[in-house]
This record gives sequence, C-alpha cells and structure tokens, in this order.
Amino acid sequence: MKGKNYAQEALKLHEELRGKLEIKVRADVSSKEALSLSYTPGVAQPCLEIQRDVNRSFDLTRRWNTIAMITDGTSVLGLGDIGPEAGMPVMEGKCMLFKAFGDVDAIPLCIRTKDVDKIVETISLLAGSFGGINLEDIAAPRCFEIEKRLKECCDIPIFHDDQHGSAVITLAALINALKVVGKKPEEVRIVMAGAGAAGIATARLLLSMGIRDIILTDRKGALYPGREDMNPIKEELAGMTNASGIRGTLEEVIRGADVFVGLSGPGIVTQDMVRSMAKDPVIFACANPVPEIYPQEAEAAGAAVVATARTDFPNQVNNVLCFPGIFRGALDVRASDINDEMKVAAAYAVAGLVSDEELSAQYILPTAFDPRVRDTVAMAVAAAARKSGVARL
Amino acid sequence: MKGKNYAQEALKLHEELRGKLEIKVRADVSSKEALSLSYTPGVAQPCLEIQRDVNRSFDLTRRWNTIAMITDGTSVLGLGDIGPEAGMPVMEGKCMLFKAFGDVDAIPLCIRTKDVDKIVETISLLAGSFGGINLEDIAAPRCFEIEKRLKECCDIPIFHDDQHGSAVITLAALINALKVVGKKPEEVRIVMAGAGAAGIATARLLLSMGIRDIILTDRKGALYPGREDMNPIKEELAGMTNASGIRGTLEEVIRGADVFVGLSGPGIVTQDMVRSMAKDPVIFACANPVPEIYPQEAEAAGAAVVATARTDFPNQVNNVLCFPGIFRGALDVRASDINDEMKVAAAYAVAGLVSDEELSAQYILPTAFDPRVRDTVAMAVAAAARKSGVARL
Repeated sequence: MKGKNYAQEALKLHEELRGKLEIKVRADVSSKEALSLSYTPGVAQPCLEIQRDVNRSFDLTRRWNTIAMITDGTSVLGLGDIGPEAGMPVMEGKCMLFKAFGDVDAIPLCIRTKDVDKIVETISLLAGSFGGINLEDIAAPRCFEIEKRLKECCDIPIFHDDQHGSAVITLAALINALKVVGKKPEEVRIVMAGAGAAGIATARLLLSMGIRDIILTDRKGALYPGREDMNPIKEELAGMTNASGIRGTLEEVIRGADVFVGLSGPGIVTQDMVRSMAKDPVIFACANPVPEIYPQEAEAAGAAVVATARTDFPNQVNNVLCFPGIFRGALDVRASDINDEMKVAAAYAVAGLVSDEELSAQYILPTAFDPRVRDTVAMAVAAAARKSGVARL
Repeated sequence: MKGKNYAQEALKLHEELRGKLEIKVRADVSSKEALSLSYTPGVAQPCLEIQRDVNRSFDLTRRWNTIAMITDGTSVLGLGDIGPEAGMPVMEGKCMLFKAFGDVDAIPLCIRTKDVDKIVETISLLAGSFGGINLEDIAAPRCFEIEKRLKECCDIPIFHDDQHGSAVITLAALINALKVVGKKPEEVRIVMAGAGAAGIATARLLLSMGIRDIILTDRKGALYPGREDMNPIKEELAGMTNASGIRGTLEEVIRGADVFVGLSGPGIVTQDMVRSMAKDPVIFACANPVPEIYPQEAEAAGAAVVATARTDFPNQVNNVLCFPGIFRGALDVRASDINDEMKVAAAYAVAGLVSDEELSAQYILPTAFDPRVRDTVAMAVAAAARKSGVARL
C-alpha cells in the first residue's frame, strides 16, 4: 500500500481504461451471408428451438457460460453503502477476475434500490438471461434474505461471494493451518469475530462440516441464545454455536481458543489476546486493508500460523482462489444450486493444492496465479454437484 | 432463403458457437501488482470518485459505452410471443450488430414478465448500469407505454428499435425515393399498412417533420377518429393523420396515393392496388420475410421505386443502417434522450450517403457494410443532440 499515490495511480488507470470489460463478438459478421445465419433470417430457428424446450437456451445462446454480477452498492469493499453506481468499478473488477481465472462471462449490474422485495423481483425476472447469479457487496443482514428468497424462486445457482467465497477460502485455510499445528478440525475451539455476511456464512459452513465448538462474536461480544439486540440471523447462529453458552467480550472468550477467525474490523486483537489462546494458536486476521492484528505482532505473541486478506503478507485468504472455479464447475454441469457439498469440495480442492512437503506456517494456500486452481476447483465442484444431485448435465 | 436447409444451417452454427457474444477483459490481470490497481485495493478510489459525483461513472466504468438490449420475448421477429429465453438468439444477434457496426457494448437481457409495471420497474432499477437502453421485440401497444414511462423516469436514452429504427430508416428511404420520382415529402399522400410498433412510430416521425397527408391502416382498414375497436395509441394517431377522414379498406384508400409504406404482413398488396395509385408510385413492402408485394410484381404494375426489408432484393430497408450510429452518437455526447431531431438527423445522414449521381430506383439506400455509415450517422445524431439540448458532453 502506497497511500495517496497508490490511489491516484489506480484512479488514473481507470480513467485511461474507461471500463475494464467490453463485449466481444464471437460470430462472423463480415458479410451478408454470414449475417443471414447468425442474424435474420437464420436466427429464427434457434429461437423456435428454445421456444420448444427452454433448456436449449443453454446450448444455443451464451447462457451456459454467463452469470450476472449484481450489487445494490450497500457494502462495497470496506467503503460501505456508497450507492449502486459507485459499486461498479468493483463489479467490473470482479467480472474481470471471473473471466481471467474461470473463463466465466460475468455481466456487472447495479440495482438502484435497497428494498429486498424489489431486488429479489428484479433478479428473478432476469434469471432467464443467465446460467447463474453472483450477488456482491450487499449489506448484511439483507443479503441473507435476498439470497434465500432467490434460491427458492430461481432455477439457476445463486451465490453471494462475500458470504460463501469467504467461507470456502477460510475453510481451505483452516484445513491446512490445522495440519501445520497438528490439530483436528472437530477438536478445536474456534472463536470468530464479525457476524456480517462473511462471518455468518463461514460459521454455517464450518457447522455443516460437523465442527461444533465455535463462538461467534460481534462488536458486543459473544453471540449466545437469548442475548438482546441480535437480528434474526444472529439469533439463529447463536442457537447453533456456543454450546456452553459462554458470554463476554472477544477478549474474554478468545482465552483458550485454538483458532481465531477475524472477518471484522481493524486492530481488534491484541498481543495479550493471542497469548491467552491455546498452544500454537492459528490467527486469520482477514479485515482488509487493516487486519485485526498484523502478522508480525501475532507471531511475536506466539501465533503458530497467521493468515490475512492482503497480498503483501504470506497466506493470503483470497476469494479469487475459489469463486471462478466454483462457478466454472457449477456451469459445466449446469447445476441448479451451489450447495454446501460443493463449497466444502471447493475448500478441500484449494487446500489440496498445497502438498504436504510444501505446507508450512508461511504457506497454507496456493497463490491466485497458480494455474492448477481453476480446473482443480471446478472438477471438485462439478463432482460434488453430481453426487449431491444438483447437476443437470 | 433456402428453406429447411437454411434453417438447419443456422441452427448448427448456433450449436457450434454456443453464444454470439462473450466478455473481453480490458485491464491487465497478469500480476498481483496489476490487480492491486484494477481491483483491490486500488479500485476503492474510482468507487469513491463516483460516490462523490455519480456522473463519474461514465468516465471510470464502461457505462459510457454500454447499453442494455432488453426484451420480454413477446414480439420476436415474425415469430410473435415465443417467450423471453427464446428471444435471446435475436438479442445476442442485435448486440453483435451494435458492436460490429457501432462499437457499442450491448448486453442482452430478457425479462420473465409481460407486466408493464414490472418491466418498467426492472429496467429503471438497472439504469445506473448503462448509458442507454434499447428495447427490442416487445409487442405493441405495450411497447409504447413501456417506452413512454421509461423516458419519464430514466436519465439515459431509451430507444425501441422496432419503432424508431424502423421509422428512421423508412424516412431515409422515403427521402431518396421521392427524389427519384421528383416529388416533395410535404406534397405526397402516404398510405401506410400496419399500426404496430414500426407503423405507429414511422407515422409519428413523418408527422413530426410536417408530412401531413398520411393515412394509416390496420387489418380493418383506415384509422379515422371515432372508429371503434382501436387501442388508445391508434386513436391518438387517427386524430393526427387522415385529415380528410377517409374510411375504407387498404384497397380503397390506396387509390391515388403516391407512397405505400408496408410494415404489416405478407401479400396484402395486389398489382391492381399498385395500378390504382398516383403516377410513379413508391412501394415500401417491408414485411419480412414475405413482403406485402414482391418487387417484380410491383414493378410490373408500374411501381417506380420498390424497397423491401430483404437482403436479396435491391433497396433493403435495414435498421442496422441506423441503430448502431444513433447510439454511437448519443453515447458520444452522453445524450439524455434520443429525440425526434436526432432521429430525423440520422435519416438524412443515411439518405445523404447516396450521392445524386448514384441515386436510382434500384439504389436509394447505402448497404449495411458501407464503412461511412457509422460515423456519418453518429456525427449527425451527436450534432442534433447538441442542437436540441439533450447532449451532456
């Protein structure tokens, strides 16, 4: 991070590019004859085919490889509710990653409303244009309801990367970090900070794998059943986590924990808190750009493995390791859903790209540019889709 | 047209292509450093710029060059109401033409409803993602209300090509056809067949230019004030056309007309009807694929100039001559609307590409592949936008 100059450099790049995506034509348009096949009158035939069987839209148009990337601009990066249009540079950026790392055609769309009903209706009315929907940068807890309702009414996969991409990559990091310290997932106590989109989804995914000893905290401390001032989602999670009903601040509940997963805000973890954890603590400090605790500090306080969301430290917990491959796999088998089985498969696929020989406290995840990532994740996800009965090819 | 084999060839092409469009990445994504500028953390700066001033979305994202191509699948080609997904091959085809002939990035979207309120709301909620909206293949009279309401609530150009593209190119053809026969637009009687999207819009555009002697007909004959069974749009047009209140079938009202403009159905004009027209009749038989009357028949009955929508006869009245350039021009000056002045300018620009020396009964319009078309139309449209006060650049 180079501060102001860095920001100015990025701004200049965006001004010069004037858009990070454009449309590319795949058909021959160079002659009347070519147009008579790709456009009128020839195009009538594929239209009639799709009218006869709507599934043919996946063969005869780009639907099989196209997803929508949709935001309402309410939770953009660390910037918060900056409005739909202001979210577009991130949407274009994410679409760019989908194409570069997954060969998925993603279309950025921002919606000018925060009304859940309207967002759900807008997206569901557009679902026939796409093979999948990636929700992005939509604030919690609204994002949970939007995703849930869309999953009920759409026949294509609905995926909120801020939730599930974060959960998958955190799980991948956890699998390998626990190998480094020689602990088993089902035996560790995990304390999490942050009960937003990423925190809630990560807790849910860990629970779905049978990891039971999880304490989820927000700004007010541990979530426990009956705590006041919780939204319905937090209430639900409070009932599924924190089996012993521990109450207290993060500082209090982190004592003795094996793993800290931070998906929250800057600087909330101190060296004393790390020292209060169990032997060989694992610290994922994923707040971005300023982590919950800096790696050097955590290590100095005894952390055995530290990961962050940043590119400039080892062990970057980066969603780009999973979302392109997850959609690649889902689209390849025309999955109707991206379910927990597929997410867990993606996590193990990413984790498996670090061999036992390579695995170390400084290297628990492959890099985003590892050319094996896409196909490894895609194939694992496709297989899990088949096994769990959501594949249609 | 080669019938069945032709259709099969087009189907095969679509099966092989699996989509006529894809996303192309414009930014460097080949290194961590590049991604730190085009994606996080650098992307935060353009986001904040747009939050500060939403107009900056036209500089910092692809919005300046991106339009939505939207259908509900209710009036696709000559196929009618075949459903949203079945309209997609045409939508992709049109987007392909926008890129190839106008360098406009058009995104195909089909909407799964026929409800006017829902269509208007869906599109208006997405307007922040685009620099313009092209409505396509939406049935009349619903298309009129959808367009009108979107124009009221959106700050970007709304254009229904089936209406206005058809109107513009018909006007261009008319300008040159009348030159060939030595008649003046304001002195001719024009009888039109078809009071759908294209017919209504063409009549309106001609009226806006001061051409008064127009009789619009539908299946039941001439529209006149007070005629029963007309929708509100036809009623409105009946009050603006047919000044002498002529009643009767097309066969009756075409007598003595200088120009016939068919935007209707196959074979409704006979040779006797052509013979009943004024001296040197002009016939635009634009029903597709089977025209209102075939050129050979019309010419044998005395037609001085004949145009159709087909590529295999002279004088193809083809919207592709105008819609790419119209949007190119509108986007280049960030127009808030595509108004009548811009449409008329586009028509004269297209007509002007046929020089007086070239102009003949067999050559009243340039071909779609004439490389001058795009910029000539775009510049004329941009100038008209500036003059009429809708340009924002």
